Amino acid sequence: MARIVMKFGGTSVANLERIRASAAFVRREVEDGHSVAVVVSAMAGETNRLVALCEEAGPPAPALDARFVEHDAIVSSGEQVTSGLLALVMQQMGFRARSWQGWQIPFNTDESHGKARIRSIESNAIGDAMDRGEVAVVAGFQGVNREARITTLGRGGSDTSAVALAAVVGAERCDIYTDVDGVYTTDPRLTKQARRIGKISYEEMLEMASVGAKVLQTRSVEMAMAHGVRLRVLSSFDPPDAGASGTLICDEDEIVEQNIVTAVTPDFNEAAVTVLAVPDEPGRAAGLFTKLAEANINIDMIVQSASREPGFANISFTTKEDDLDRAVEVLGEVQAQIGYKSLQADRNVAKISVVGLGMKSHAGVASIMFQTLAEKGINIHNISTSEIKISVLIDSDAAEYAVRSLHDAYGLEKAN
Amino acid sequence: MARIVMKFGGTSVANLERIRASAAFVRREVEDGHSVAVVVSAMAGETNRLVALCEEAGPPAPALDARFVEHDAIVSSGEQVTSGLLALVMQQMGFRARSWQGWQIPFNTDESHGKARIRSIESNAIGDAMDRGEVAVVAGFQGVNREARITTLGRGGSDTSAVALAAVVGAERCDIYTDVDGVYTTDPRLTKQARRIGKISYEEMLEMASVGAKVLQTRSVEMAMAHGVRLRVLSSFDPPDAGASGTLICDEDEIVEQNIVTAVTPDFNEAAVTVLAVPDEPGRAAGLFTKLAEANINIDMIVQSASREPGFANISFTTKEDDLDRAVEVLGEVQAQIGYKSLQADRNVAKISVVGLGMKSHAGVASIMFQTLAEKGINIHNISTSEIKISVLIDSDAAEYAVRSLHDAYGLEKAN
Repeated sequence: MARIVMKFGGTSVANLERIRASAAFVRREVEDGHSVAVVVSAMAGETNRLVALCEEAGPPAPALDARFVEHDAIVSSGEQVTSGLLALVMQQMGFRARSWQGWQIPFNTDESHGKARIRSIESNAIGDAMDRGEVAVVAGFQGVNREARITTLGRGGSDTSAVALAAVVGAERCDIYTDVDGVYTTDPRLTKQARRIGKISYEEMLEMASVGAKVLQTRSVEMAMAHGVRLRVLSSFDPPDAGASGTLICDEDEIVEQNIVTAVTPDFNEAAVTVLAVPDEPGRAAGLFTKLAEANINIDMIVQSASREPGFANISFTTKEDDLDRAVEVLGEVQAQIGYKSLQADRNVAKISVVGLGMKSHAGVASIMFQTLAEKGINIHNISTSEIKISVLIDSDAAEYAVRSLHDAYGLEKAN
Repeated sequence: MARIVMKFGGTSVANLERIRASAAFVRREVEDGHSVAVVVSAMAGETNRLVALCEEAGPPAPALDARFVEHDAIVSSGEQVTSGLLALVMQQMGFRARSWQGWQIPFNTDESHGKARIRSIESNAIGDAMDRGEVAVVAGFQGVNREARITTLGRGGSDTSAVALAAVVGAERCDIYTDVDGVYTTDPRLTKQARRIGKISYEEMLEMASVGAKVLQTRSVEMAMAHGVRLRVLSSFDPPDAGASGTLICDEDEIVEQNIVTAVTPDFNEAAVTVLAVPDEPGRAAGLFTKLAEANINIDMIVQSASREPGFANISFTTKEDDLDRAVEVLGEVQAQIGYKSLQADRNVAKISVVGLGMKSHAGVASIMFQTLAEKGINIHNISTSEIKISVLIDSDAAEYAVRSLHDAYGLEKAN
């Protein structure tokens, strides 16, 4: 029988009732003869409570930046508690189980407290426990650095913990249990036509995560792709025997019938900035983007167009809505230096992306998109593309209509 | 300058405000040039919350007793959080500080989860940190066993952690900060005459702890005595500069003017059991006490007296009120075997103890006690004594009056 890694997020372990419901999924895998390791998040709300305590303790003293060392020691206690509770519940059901903290395995990371990266994982102890039929309940999100200090992997880090563990123990599958039952062709809140996708390739999932689909963090999908870990997203809120199998994220070779377009992904957390009348000389645009990068502001969908005034250009780009105020501030500081005339900022925009591996070999995906939006009278501000994705920036008022129209146009209600 | 260990209990770290107040005491010691390690408990209420979660997860499965392994992993997270928060607050004040978990030091214990005993403490890392002026904030109550599993030391274990650490780093003093400002000649809620004791010997403190004074756990005082650690009990609720110096618990040689009697300690958590008409044959009484010991019920103040019926004896003893029902149940099970006639149980009793090193060399302490109680018309049920203590069992209704009368009779309102 195979080794399986299962991961339960915060809402799946929010209280003892939910922990018992999640334990029933573990029981099923063990009774099916699998060797199981389980990675758990903190109980829903617990990480926020602990972070709030850290913040109440005050920002770091200027000369010392030991803040995040303690932050990690404090916040990692959330997963420690859940791992112990799930182990207790599994024991209660009659199974052999024990909790594993990051430092007990160990899960070795670099020194970047608060956003550590995994260097290596000792797989022997966990693998041995799994082989002798003991459920290994692993505290997610945490590791230990060379100085034996506790580190954390950043938000969504428990998914990364699970995928990394699945890679080192050679798991047949890494099942991510969450509060949705899979990845959908689009946000089901926007159209009833949205369908759960049975299988999706790593590349498509990565594009979807990067354009705003929130089911999985980009980082965990990247790691799964790099190590060939088959990831499955499914709900811990369905009964274990309901037969719903979630969404499998796997190599494209495993997907027999590939759709040309797999999903339409909206992102409402976008804002547009237009810098008007930038002198059209080498280095001026670069100056803008360097300043934004130095302020750690990510930008996307850059378009440069000629200004009405000769010798000047307009530059527009998008950024996350949360970063907009800082972007405007940073650009304001360099106005004299860059020599642009004025700035425009717009929060009422949304990015709609069409993602599909089939675009590599099928022409016409873009033209269907533009034609559909044109027919519906929806104006496109910006466009950006990758090999398997086309994104357009439109007014946010029109976003829901655009999603429904595109979902129809690509026939996604009949998805695999 | 000296090495100092400071310990803050749950009420002294109950929230960020209290943690900051406690940090002010640490600041004072550091500014006085001392090298400081601080041991912390969980925030008040946190251990109970975590224990309740464990209990909600269910009692141990019959065949497996791994329950307390997970219990310890879960419950120890409380001290982990406090240690991080106090380190953050100290950093915020401009000091170098870091948290230390039991496994990071390490604090090596035996395998007895839930009530582990300390085997050894690696003092190098902590000592080095102290020497370079870094405040070492140590999570109390926890250690690690040979299998690298987290263990806990049982209730009151943080005091034991602090004393053990003080012993291995050769601290000049171990200051236990709590919500009372020292050890009193009697419970101040019973008489306004009660006075804080400036210095008290280990032996007296041990007797007081064993007869119900709750300021310190017996175990931490025993350890302090064994290793010659000078312990001070003081309040974190007074301002750091108030000059109140608490109570020093130290070797009797350090106490220049020794009182004959140091304290009058009441214990209301007592119950009396009388077993009537036990056949007066060798082994019958032993049979009773063996059964109680097997049920892990502690008993005290044993008195055997002749029964009115020849060939039979009455045996009475005291036990903790919480254990009374189980004691009665256990004795009921062996009634036929032992052959006694009947049982009486009485919850309305209290034990009043008079403690003082001076009793070793001064006669008359007992006679003052008996005479005082007789004058006040207070009936004594049982008596037990040690070299430096006399305890009497009386009706609990009379306890407060007895305490006040004895406090007066020994002149304790003029204590050192």
